[in-house]
Formats: sequence, C-alpha cells, structure tokens
Amino acid sequence: MVSSSEGNASPRFLAKRRVEFRDTDAAGIVHFSAFFPIIESVEHEFLRSVGISVMPDHDDANRVTWPRVSARCDYQGPARFEDVLDVALYVDRIGASSVTYRFGITCHGRDVATGEIVVVCCRLTAGGQLSKAAIPEDIKKRLEGESG
Amino acid sequence: MVSSSEGNASPRFLAKRRVEFRDTDAAGIVHFSAFFPIIESVEHEFLRSVGISVMPDHDDANRVTWPRVSARCDYQGPARFEDVLDVALYVDRIGASSVTYRFGITCHGRDVATGEIVVVCCRLTAGGQLSKAAIPEDIKKRLEGESG
Amino acid sequence: MVSSSEGNASPRFLAKRRVEFRDTDAAGIVHFSAFFPIIESVEHEFLRSVGISVMPDHDDANRVTWPRVSARCDYQGPARFEDVLDVALYVDRIGASSVTYRFGITCHGRDVATGEIVVVCCRLTAGGQLSKAAIPEDIKKRLEGESG
Amino acid sequence: MVSSSEGNASPRFLAKRRVEFRDTDAAGIVHFSAFFPIIESVEHEFLRSVGISVMPDHDDANRVTWPRVSARCDYQGPARFEDVLDVALYVDRIGASSVTYRFGITCHGRDVATGEIVVVCCRLTAGGQLSKAAIPEDIKKRLEGESG
Repeated sequence: MVSSSEGNASPRFLAKRRVEFRDTDAAGIVHFSAFFPIIESVEHEFLRSVGISVMPDHDDANRVTWPRVSARCDYQGPARFEDVLDVALYVDRIGASSVTYRFGITCHGRDVATGEIVVVCCRLTAGGQLSKAAIPEDIKKRLEGESG
Repeated sequence: MVSSSEGNASPRFLAKRRVEFRDTDAAGIVHFSAFFPIIESVEHEFLRSVGISVMPDHDDANRVTWPRVSARCDYQGPARFEDVLDVALYVDRIGASSVTYRFGITCHGRDVATGEIVVVCCRLTAGGQLSKAAIPEDIKKRLEGESG
Repeated sequence: MVSSSEGNASPRFLAKRRVEFRDTDAAGIVHFSAFFPIIESVEHEFLRSVGISVMPDHDDANRVTWPRVSARCDYQGPARFEDVLDVALYVDRIGASSVTYRFGITCHGRDVATGEIVVVCCRLTAGGQLSKAAIPEDIKKRLEGESG
Repeated sequence: MVSSSEGNASPRFLAKRRVEFRDTDAAGIVHFSAFFPIIESVEHEFLRSVGISVMPDHDDANRVTWPRVSARCDYQGPARFEDVLDVALYVDRIGASSVTYRFGITCHGRDVATGEIVVVCCRLTAGGQLSKAAIPEDIKKRLEGESG
C-alpha cells in the first residue's frame, strides 16, 4: 500500500477525469498504465491552480521543474469506458528538494486506485542539464496552501 | 526503493526494447509512464517463453489470467529516443495466489529504472467475472523455472 | 487535404481539450498520433450529447457500435504542452451505414490540425461478432441534429 | 483508400511488430490510433537501416528532420493481443522536399490496415525552429535504395 507518511488527511486538490476509450484494454477496463498520465495531469492542474509553472522557460533562471523519482499505483477495483473518475490529490510530504503526492481515485464513491508520485525539484543549468535544487520558499508556500 | 523481499539475485528472463519516438515527451526523454507498458510487454514475453498463456480463452476452464494489484517504477536516469533498453525480469516472490515481478532497466550498463508489478492469479467465472484463485501447480513450476 | 464532400460549413459540436504532458514528444510538440485519441474523445462526447450510446450492451439488440473504417489527420502547425485546443466536429456525410466526421483543431485561432474519421454502423450478433447495419432512423436524426 | 500515386509495387522495407496489451481497447482489438506509432516505428527502423538519422543533433548543420504533414490509416480487419503484424513499407513518392510512405499491415496474410504518412524535410535553424528544405541528394539516394 501507498503509505501516507505524514498523515495528510484532507485532499489539497480535487479533479474529475473521464475514462476515454483509448484508456481501456482488451480486458474491458482501464489499463493499469493509463492511471499514470491521469494522475500526472491532475498534478499539473493542481500546480497551475496555485500558480506554479510545470515546465521552466529556458531563459528564466528562477523557474524549476519536477522530474519524477518514483511512481506507483495500487489497484482496488476496475474502471470502465466513460466512467467519470474523482481524483483527490494530497501533498503527503514536502522535503528539502522533493515532494510526495498521493492520489485517491474513486468512481461514484467506489475505490478504484491509489497513486503516489515523488518528484524532485530541479533547475535548468546553462547547458540544458537538470540539477537538484532546494524548493524555493514561495513555491513551498504555494504547495502547502499558505498562499496563491 | 523497490525491495527484493526474497533476494532473487539472478534474472529469470532478459529482453531488449527499443525506445520509440512515441515513448518520449517534451523533456526529451522517455515519459515516466511509458516504462509501464514496456515492463508489462516483457512480463508477457516471459510468460509466453515458459508456455503460460496471458489471456484465458472464454471456454477454457483451466486457464487463469493476471490482473495487476500494484505497479511501481523508480527512476535512476533518463532514456532517450532510439536507446536500446536491457530489461531483466526477476520473479521476486510467488505467493499462494500472487506473483511479484521485479524489473531492472539499463541502457549500455547505465541504470535507468527499476520496476515492480504485483499480479494476482484469477479465473474467469461463467458470468465473465474474475475471481482470485490459487496458482495452479504446473504454472507455479513454470514461473519458478523448474519446467517449460 | 481532408475534403468536405458535402460542404458542411458549420460545426455540429464544439469541445476543448488541454494538451497533457503525455501527448508531447521529444520534438517538444504534440505527437502526431496523439491527435487521434483526442478527436475520438470529442466524437464520443458529441454522441453522448445527442443521446447516442458509444458501446452497445451485450444484451441490447437495438444498440449499434461504430468501428472505424479510416482515420486521417493533416497537420498545419504545432501544439504544445498546456495549450488548450478548440476542436470543432462536423458531420460531413451520413450514408446508409457510414458516417464521416471532420474535425478542425485550432489553438487561439491558429490552425493546428484537421482530422477525419469514417465509422461504420454495426450490430453485435449473438456470437459477439460485428455485422454492418443500416443506421437506425432515430440515430440518423440525432446525428443530423433534428432531435435530441 | 490510400492511393499509390506512383504505383510502387514492391516494398522497400519489411518489419514485424507484436501487438502488445496496451495497444488493445475494450472492443478487444487493436485501437485504431495504435497503428500510428507502429507505422512510425517502422519508418524510423527503415531510416536507420539505410543510414539516415531521424532526429538531428542540434550542432549538425547538415542533418535534417521529418515532421509529419499528414497521416492516415484505412482499416480492413481487426488485430488482437499477441498477434504478430507484418508491416511492409513502400516509398510511394519522393518530392523536392517531401516523402510519402505507404504501409501495408497484414497478419498471417490477412489484411489488417493500410497506412500513409507524408513527411517534409526540414532543417533546424539557429534559433531552434524548423524550416522546409530540399531533400539532400545523398538522402534521396538512400531513400530510393540506390546506396546505403
């Protein structure tokens, strides 16, 4: 099971996602891999909602980006074509340079899947490489919900 | 980190996968979600190689199928378009009705990702539903490498 | 170029789609193949909006489904991560058993792509096979916009 | 139907592709959109086979890349999980700056789909933009099969 290391009980962001036909497979249900783009799209929608850009412009020295360190899903029940999924995003942990998101996916109150993504804060260097960086204070506050 | 609960040190199966253009994203590297279909395709190639069918025929009472209980990847380094990935499959644990696969993904010896998929053995019931079942002995032996 | 054989000038349905990160590729733009699930999802949203079911229940003798005969996209300009696409659906032609949809995809008024999908009306037979069928009159009216 | 404007009757390149589980959908067959990454991967394998690079290095002034102008598939019959597809690539037309590829996809001799991709030869400009360019003579020869 995905553990909630810091017991963050209330969701930080809620979104809905319709299951599209391309998300399904020959078993008649959403393919297990299709949940990962779904939870990433909710993560990105959350970041936009608190004013954090997802991809840095090459010429903005202050912007950071968030490559994934790990991703996981636990599956509790199937979802099917045209189902509308309720996705709850939790900010489980904000470290010095990493963030752990947890996702609860339900369909009409029925548990479908739980997801977890750990991202690390990186800056673009002059040469176009990524280097790990401390999460800037203003971004930390936006993630925590104290501003934005 | 994905743990190897029973310390299975030698791979049970090896496969290669070319990174296709569709696997990449605007960060110029393989999208984190694209590793999941890759490791599943290696799992299925392994099953075929030991004579285990992946999807049961509706009229075959003895066949089982393998829905996923959880899936996870940890990312160590990027992979890029046209890279050839070496994927090592480990059968980490065979329980009464579940199997834990671990995957080590490297590119020219460089660590790219580690994956883990837990599947549960199910039979198709008359009504087309899946019900958890003990792994049949002959399939257990094929997974363990004692036959096939 | 996708031709509009019957010159249907006004869109039958409008929808918006956000470009998600998984839609992009290492060229930094939406992968050409990603437009096909996008236009199919708009076709399905249109069908729902006029009360036509997309997938038949196995036990409903009156329901039809719509396998694709052909699909095409012409690309006029790139779309990028987080762009919001305006997708206009046109019902270009309704034949005895086929429907031709055309899609105009723009981003802030700029042409991105034109799509075309030709589907054929099929019924599920008792054995689970599909057989071509004349489009039922009530469905034809819903497609044409005279009811629903 | 995809027309073969110059009647190129013999395939320029042959490849096999296994249908993976992620390629399928809830109708139990390969999703129509999944054929596009498949034919692109065969196009790229063909280009590698004749020594043409698919993606230019940013610092190589002589390299060209091939954005898509249009893509189309016509569907003749279903393909299913684990089917092995035979993909025949035809170079239908080489223009001043564009190439038309045609793809015949069969499974055990049975017609599955016909594809067509039109690409345009582009150079990367200093600013990272793409500009249309005449196909270099040595690349034209490699496409035509006179060298490489």
